[in-house]
Amino acid sequence: MIIHSRHNWFELLFVWRGSVLPRILPRLCLVFLISLLSAFATNWWISQHAQSSLNIYIFTLMGVSLAIFLSFRNSVSYERFWEARKLWGTLLIVARTLAGKLLAVADARPESRQMLHGICAFAYALKGQLRQDDVAAHLQRLLPAAEWQAIADAPGKPGLILLYLHRLNASLRHSGSIDQWQWQSVDRNLDALSDVVGGCERIRNTPIPFTYRVLLNRTVTIYCMLLPIGLTTSIGWLTPLIAVFIAYTYMALDVLGEELEEPFGKEGNDLPLTALCYGIESAVCDMLRQPVPVPAPQPDGVYLY
Amino acid sequence: MIIHSRHNWFELLFVWRGSVLPRILPRLCLVFLISLLSAFATNWWISQHAQSSLNIYIFTLMGVSLAIFLSFRNSVSYERFWEARKLWGTLLIVARTLAGKLLAVADARPESRQMLHGICAFAYALKGQLRQDDVAAHLQRLLPAAEWQAIADAPGKPGLILLYLHRLNASLRHSGSIDQWQWQSVDRNLDALSDVVGGCERIRNTPIPFTYRVLLNRTVTIYCMLLPIGLTTSIGWLTPLIAVFIAYTYMALDVLGEELEEPFGKEGNDLPLTALCYGIESAVCDMLRQPVPVPAPQPDGVYLY
Amino acid sequence: MIIHSRHNWFELLFVWRGSVLPRILPRLCLVFLISLLSAFATNWWISQHAQSSLNIYIFTLMGVSLAIFLSFRNSVSYERFWEARKLWGTLLIVARTLAGKLLAVADARPESRQMLHGICAFAYALKGQLRQDDVAAHLQRLLPAAEWQAIADAPGKPGLILLYLHRLNASLRHSGSIDQWQWQSVDRNLDALSDVVGGCERIRNTPIPFTYRVLLNRTVTIYCMLLPIGLTTSIGWLTPLIAVFIAYTYMALDVLGEELEEPFGKEGNDLPLTALCYGIESAVCDMLRQPVPVPAPQPDGVYLY
Amino acid sequence: MIIHSRHNWFELLFVWRGSVLPRILPRLCLVFLISLLSAFATNWWISQHAQSSLNIYIFTLMGVSLAIFLSFRNSVSYERFWEARKLWGTLLIVARTLAGKLLAVADARPESRQMLHGICAFAYALKGQLRQDDVAAHLQRLLPAAEWQAIADAPGKPGLILLYLHRLNASLRHSGSIDQWQWQSVDRNLDALSDVVGGCERIRNTPIPFTYRVLLNRTVTIYCMLLPIGLTTSIGWLTPLIAVFIAYTYMALDVLGEELEEPFGKEGNDLPLTALCYGIESAVCDMLRQPVPVPAPQPDGVYLY
Amino acid sequence: MIIHSRHNWFELLFVWRGSVLPRILPRLCLVFLISLLSAFATNWWISQHAQSSLNIYIFTLMGVSLAIFLSFRNSVSYERFWEARKLWGTLLIVARTLAGKLLAVADARPESRQMLHGICAFAYALKGQLRQDDVAAHLQRLLPAAEWQAIADAPGKPGLILLYLHRLNASLRHSGSIDQWQWQSVDRNLDALSDVVGGCERIRNTPIPFTYRVLLNRTVTIYCMLLPIGLTTSIGWLTPLIAVFIAYTYMALDVLGEELEEPFGKEGNDLPLTALCYGIESAVCDMLRQPVPVPAPQPDGVYLY
Repeated sequence: MIIHSRHNWFELLFVWRGSVLPRILPRLCLVFLISLLSAFATNWWISQHAQSSLNIYIFTLMGVSLAIFLSFRNSVSYERFWEARKLWGTLLIVARTLAGKLLAVADARPESRQMLHGICAFAYALKGQLRQDDVAAHLQRLLPAAEWQAIADAPGKPGLILLYLHRLNASLRHSGSIDQWQWQSVDRNLDALSDVVGGCERIRNTPIPFTYRVLLNRTVTIYCMLLPIGLTTSIGWLTPLIAVFIAYTYMALDVLGEELEEPFGKEGNDLPLTALCYGIESAVCDMLRQPVPVPAPQPDGVYLY
Repeated sequence: MIIHSRHNWFELLFVWRGSVLPRILPRLCLVFLISLLSAFATNWWISQHAQSSLNIYIFTLMGVSLAIFLSFRNSVSYERFWEARKLWGTLLIVARTLAGKLLAVADARPESRQMLHGICAFAYALKGQLRQDDVAAHLQRLLPAAEWQAIADAPGKPGLILLYLHRLNASLRHSGSIDQWQWQSVDRNLDALSDVVGGCERIRNTPIPFTYRVLLNRTVTIYCMLLPIGLTTSIGWLTPLIAVFIAYTYMALDVLGEELEEPFGKEGNDLPLTALCYGIESAVCDMLRQPVPVPAPQPDGVYLY
Repeated sequence: MIIHSRHNWFELLFVWRGSVLPRILPRLCLVFLISLLSAFATNWWISQHAQSSLNIYIFTLMGVSLAIFLSFRNSVSYERFWEARKLWGTLLIVARTLAGKLLAVADARPESRQMLHGICAFAYALKGQLRQDDVAAHLQRLLPAAEWQAIADAPGKPGLILLYLHRLNASLRHSGSIDQWQWQSVDRNLDALSDVVGGCERIRNTPIPFTYRVLLNRTVTIYCMLLPIGLTTSIGWLTPLIAVFIAYTYMALDVLGEELEEPFGKEGNDLPLTALCYGIESAVCDMLRQPVPVPAPQPDGVYLY
Repeated sequence: MIIHSRHNWFELLFVWRGSVLPRILPRLCLVFLISLLSAFATNWWISQHAQSSLNIYIFTLMGVSLAIFLSFRNSVSYERFWEARKLWGTLLIVARTLAGKLLAVADARPESRQMLHGICAFAYALKGQLRQDDVAAHLQRLLPAAEWQAIADAPGKPGLILLYLHRLNASLRHSGSIDQWQWQSVDRNLDALSDVVGGCERIRNTPIPFTYRVLLNRTVTIYCMLLPIGLTTSIGWLTPLIAVFIAYTYMALDVLGEELEEPFGKEGNDLPLTALCYGIESAVCDMLRQPVPVPAPQPDGVYLY
Repeated sequence: MIIHSRHNWFELLFVWRGSVLPRILPRLCLVFLISLLSAFATNWWISQHAQSSLNIYIFTLMGVSLAIFLSFRNSVSYERFWEARKLWGTLLIVARTLAGKLLAVADARPESRQMLHGICAFAYALKGQLRQDDVAAHLQRLLPAAEWQAIADAPGKPGLILLYLHRLNASLRHSGSIDQWQWQSVDRNLDALSDVVGGCERIRNTPIPFTYRVLLNRTVTIYCMLLPIGLTTSIGWLTPLIAVFIAYTYMALDVLGEELEEPFGKEGNDLPLTALCYGIESAVCDMLRQPVPVPAPQPDGVYLY
């Protein structure tokens, strides 16, 4: 996630970090070059082939199909991003709900605290799986030694931690700290954790159909490359300026859509999973009235990972 | 929220408060200035660079990408606003549901009333957290003294009040005022409170990806600044009028989207959290057949906060 | 709601009642007048200020932003309308569900019937609150005398009836007519009633942000007033015809959006709350195998309220 | 529903059945006529009123508002269609779920089978109510004689069958075939049936606001009638061809939207309720390991009702 | 599903596999041919029928209705695809949830493992039904011999396996391995399986109304065939290039929409059901700490089925 202090409209014009400009610069340079060439060559071309020149109406026409593509891709990508955010929000909600339930009736039992720490471990394990991060230190810190030994080398850590949480729930109940009704209430919350990991895997493993990407990239690229040729007949030497501006908006949208489509990565606009894990642990610690044992993740410049 | 008595179409044309006009006035003045300059200079420019002048078709072309941006951003912002409203609506629903349940079977128990007051306190605490408001007076009024002492300086007040509500529920049950089935029914409603605070934090902490704002601001600003230059070749001295009108609609949409995106603030179109808190307390008092102990928040002019 | 027998396309052209034409007629007349004036003056104006005349391309350009506004507002309004309809549908569903449950096991108990009548009363009370209607006669008819006395002058009648229903549920259970499982099943249905009243209040009390209305009204009005001026240069004396037709579609959409936005009113396209209340009572009576004690509300011409 | 074997793009061009062409043919002929007249008269008209002729730009301009209408109406209609389909899908799901539950524990009890047959009867009764079909034969076949007698002449058959299912559930429990937990599980599934009938009635009784239909019909019709007049100045004798093609797409969309809006009818694109009822009975019979007692409904040409 | 290593924009331009180009090549060739013919004939035609030539504005006009169609169809198809993906994701979630629940309390019971294997069998059986695949080997491997015998030749295998799972749940409870609360918790998860099979059948059996396909195919085809004729008057010999490019984007979108509409097939962009089944079995084996008994399905080139 990119965090910026609030800029006014004028400052926003010149923001460099957090813009996707760097990623599309090479292509924009190409558009600029074509614009220059086209502005030089247009008079000669028209004198030779008066009837065969691209004009601006063609591009209005093509813009319609491009608009369909881009707006569709954009909404779909954003929905994926937002669904992913909701799933991680559910983790926080479950952590806080369970803290409220368990601390109200079984404050003294070690399993209560283990379960709350276990949910934090679940969040880290999920982050580890989604990003292929190394989260061993966090898991070791949050899980009992025996439990950590058992899952250290296993695949599917979130599933195994879920099993551990179910075991804690059963143990709380056998010890009589919670009754069957409370067991059920906790059980339902644990079901939500399974939904979260399933949902995150779905988003991660099933991208937007590849053909859309091919189609979109082709349409945007060809459109932007032809655009300067069409513009010169209308606006002459202003072409480089305008063509680059238009190409910028289309390509930026395209690249932004790509970033949001896979919201679990480490690109600028992806979800700050590390900060979300910290937030979950922090909410749990607030309710346990403990300080958070790890420092809050600091933004790297404007980027929060 | 802006509250206005119903205006007809003619009065709406001249509404000043509740319009975003004041916020975009500087930029509109700039557009006006460029329009004037452009209207003066256009004849000279065309005489020099006949082939290199912006025309109106360019702007129709660019309008397509702008339309994609604005409509997308607008729907997303409104959805955030409406989701936030729904979450606060859930608070009211839970308050009324619990009042219905508890007063039907445990009318005489002090915990029943404490729980209903506790939910009102929860609403104020959530408002305090979302807006960084000082809500100590309300919490002090609604919570028992001991409880208020315990959370006065703690972070994460909504979570701690939730824990308090869970404790009240457990206490009601231990005292035999409600049975296990009713405990469960209340427990499920308390889960909804956790959803609300988690949902509100999600909306507050995860804005629309920053890159969209950069991109949108750049596109709208550059478009509106270039527009007068393109219009003068077609409509001459009518340019200032028309360019300012078009720029107004685009910029107003942009600013409005920004306001709705963060619905918990105190800008004109944000949610009236104070009034919503009052509404929750008022619904509870209606069912307790008590007068509301605090005065209804009065609108500040047309604004209700 | 407007009910019409099925018209074919030709008859639909000349429908007057149920069209929004009457409401926008004054503005359309204004457009017509401007069209006439413009058609007279256009030759003179062009002869004086050849370079400064509005042309049709400007309006295609502006149409884009107008399209964004109108389509956005329209979907949002319709969603509000449809959500409101769904909420009222839930009332019917709950009534029928409870009838199925209670009559299957506690057919003989007076509380069963009281609860079913109570839900009908709940629907009327909700209608009374949303529309500021006087529904005393219905409540008196459907509630026991004591209950009616108690709530006759209180605010928040739906909440108080909800409390009454919870009490009936508790009473059924204490008398042993239903067991705890059935109590729980009914309890869950009663929760849905609380959702309905909360949802309806949300829709009623939080309109679409006022700034949208201001913005939309300004854009539509200014666009339609300028349109004839732009058209005359292209289509001369056909302007009045075409300009009025275009203005009609834009303004009709605008007015329609306004009506749907507040679906609980008594305007033509609002929800027929009276008929919906009757439908709920009728469904309950069908399952009780009784005739409906009140006559079905008759449409007032084509309008059903 | 229209069922077609898979056609390639070329065959699809000449499909007649399942196209809405027949329904809009009269209007298309009218457009064709106007095109011819217009092509004849255009030269004369321009020679007389050079400045007052419709041109193609007007229609691009008007196309924007038409596009808003049609796309909005189309999505709304499709959503109604798809929601209706989902509701009927829920019937199948409930039937299969109950079969799984009841046959696992109470295979031998007659009530189990009666309940499964009862759900099939519920589906037929719902179809009968939505389409005003005569389904007496099916109900008689699926319900016990006494039950059928009792509801044969009553209105609101789905509600009464729901009551019957609730009674069976209570009876299963009293006989000890299922315990309270299983009763609850079945009870929750029966609640879903109430949702289905409520949802279907909502879709059936609340069409898209009438004013939309009026507005849409007027806009589409007037647009298509004027179109040929505008086209002749640009494309002369090609007008009849192109105008009819454009009018076809607009009118077809309009008519299609109307069909989908009321998905329970017997028009070409409506839901095949008879086939859906059969599908539910067939799924139940599969799990009972019985042959289906009625023949599968055969498509009538390409139409499945 | 098409899996590709990450390409940059330049490589994407020349991707052949995973593009829909092969499927629309014949039609594109036709467009190319018409373009050539049209470029040759245009001068002659204009000299003969100066007033009756298609121009580019007509196509901008028609593009509007085409855009409505394509964008509507595209979103609907994608939603179907994504809903199907969600349903299969639910299978995985249920498998993992049940593993967590059962292994926590009834690790030693054979029924626990049978149930987990049974869910894998359910996934394969569903795949077999949706794709008409032969999955006998998998079912035989995952189900006890007696169970497999019983369902080997029966229709509706997923329903029968669901019944088997319900029986296992009842058996676990009768043996005292799980108590009633856990039975209920498992029962609720099994309900989700019924939702999945019902949802998948709904998507498979109810395509997008046939008339949309007819209409869309006609509009896209006629538009693309006429396009070159209209372009030649503006851009002469560049027509073949531009017309084919525009036709490519429209037709590709059309074909892509068709593929996504039926997401259970074996076309390039359909869901990789085989891989999903493997993923479910793999998640179960991870939690059982067993190796997966079958090899992971390997992509066939870039296609994963």
